[in-house]
Amino acid sequence: MRIDVLTLFPEMFTGVFETSILGKAQDKGIVSLSTVNFRDFSGNKHNTVDDMPYGGGGGMVLKAEPIFNAVEHLLEDPSGQATGKKPRIILMCPQGKPFSQDVARELAAESHLIFICGHYEGYDERIREFLVTEELSVGDYVLTGGELPAMVVVDAVVRLLPGVLGNDQSAVTDSFSDGLLEYPHYTRPAEFRGWKVPDTLLSGHHAEIVKWRRKQSLERTLVRRPELLEQAELTPEERKWLRTMRIEREQTTKPTK
Amino acid sequence: MRIDVLTLFPEMFTGVFETSILGKAQDKGIVSLSTVNFRDFSGNKHNTVDDMPYGGGGGMVLKAEPIFNAVEHLLEDPSGQATGKKPRIILMCPQGKPFSQDVARELAAESHLIFICGHYEGYDERIREFLVTEELSVGDYVLTGGELPAMVVVDAVVRLLPGVLGNDQSAVTDSFSDGLLEYPHYTRPAEFRGWKVPDTLLSGHHAEIVKWRRKQSLERTLVRRPELLEQAELTPEERKWLRTMRIEREQTTKPTK
Repeated sequence: MRIDVLTLFPEMFTGVFETSILGKAQDKGIVSLSTVNFRDFSGNKHNTVDDMPYGGGGGMVLKAEPIFNAVEHLLEDPSGQATGKKPRIILMCPQGKPFSQDVARELAAESHLIFICGHYEGYDERIREFLVTEELSVGDYVLTGGELPAMVVVDAVVRLLPGVLGNDQSAVTDSFSDGLLEYPHYTRPAEFRGWKVPDTLLSGHHAEIVKWRRKQSLERTLVRRPELLEQAELTPEERKWLRTMRIEREQTTKPTK
Repeated sequence: MRIDVLTLFPEMFTGVFETSILGKAQDKGIVSLSTVNFRDFSGNKHNTVDDMPYGGGGGMVLKAEPIFNAVEHLLEDPSGQATGKKPRIILMCPQGKPFSQDVARELAAESHLIFICGHYEGYDERIREFLVTEELSVGDYVLTGGELPAMVVVDAVVRLLPGVLGNDQSAVTDSFSDGLLEYPHYTRPAEFRGWKVPDTLLSGHHAEIVKWRRKQSLERTLVRRPELLEQAELTPEERKWLRTMRIEREQTTKPTK
């Protein structure tokens, strides 16, 4: 997979792209990560990339031309066309489609992704309308720019590419992909400052451990993110556990009402 | 404000913490950003920070001791106690409370934040139960570690601190804070490759421009993120516009059903 990131701050990406999983995925030749400073494609002698908004108001707006020029330069690069498949051109912005694990899986099947990161400014609407294939948002909060969101999407996508994660690394994190929150983990020592590991986990009874973990996972999701349960795939037995948990929670919370 | 980040990969933070708004906020003395490698606090001679999970299964689990030791080291540092206020100790994990602009505002009122970032691994549950003050998640997707989520939260919080953003920078982004998606922005040229800026924005009629922008903001939110409208503060006139937009959208989409 090839990933290009258009940004005015390429130096923000160095530490993240070279470290850990992203660094290793590049070393293995699974992904190629590059940044492009679109100031180099401004098309004007002062290298201006933003300007005042039409209609007034504060803030600057990123001009269409530098972004169009930079993307078109990437599209003309023969190494980017090797696959014959058109790249996805993704604008990072708070107005975009909420990024999710499903979107990560979908993007992981592509061969070329181009990310566009604005910084402080708004984007000239013509970039949205006539250049990008989609807009993505990583969450409902305001950030200084699209750089951190682009890193988030790149990380979530690259770790899904075949050969990137070892089995040891994938096991823990992938437990999230069943739509429930993770059960509690414990490691040595069995007692730390007087706080003990639950007996079940030390018992060696595999079936009991599996059941304990599943129940913990269900209960944690019920308490913290009940809306996730609507989408989760549950067995009839798990639905029964869940009903019992709900009743127990109602009974224990009643007196405080 | 003082912010400490516990991580096994401090080099990931350098480019992000030194660039743009975060770099300038540090230069101005508004915030002090530090990373702590909790491997230095392992408490064992092999500097081990993770171990196999009790009860079996793949993946490694971060041990309680290195994290407790590193946090306690920070709490003992006299420079961290200057304010007399207890720091917030925040675990970045997918099981946490969803991070939002409201949480960012709340954290921006604190004087000391400590972030704990795991990497691939799960956390020993005793860290959750007995050390941290809260758990935060930046979204429902799986990342390699808590480092990028911590950067996201730090960026969202620091840009809210008084004196960090200039007026020019804050104006555009803060339009998101009314709960609606932003209206479209345009800048020069008035015509780019045949695509024109809407006449209203070039008209100079201030009241018309304000109205056009508000309608665009409402319509974009209605089309892309209708659930946000439930929380948005709208005038009676805006509610009327919204009803009309809904009816128009129903009429235009009917034939394709």
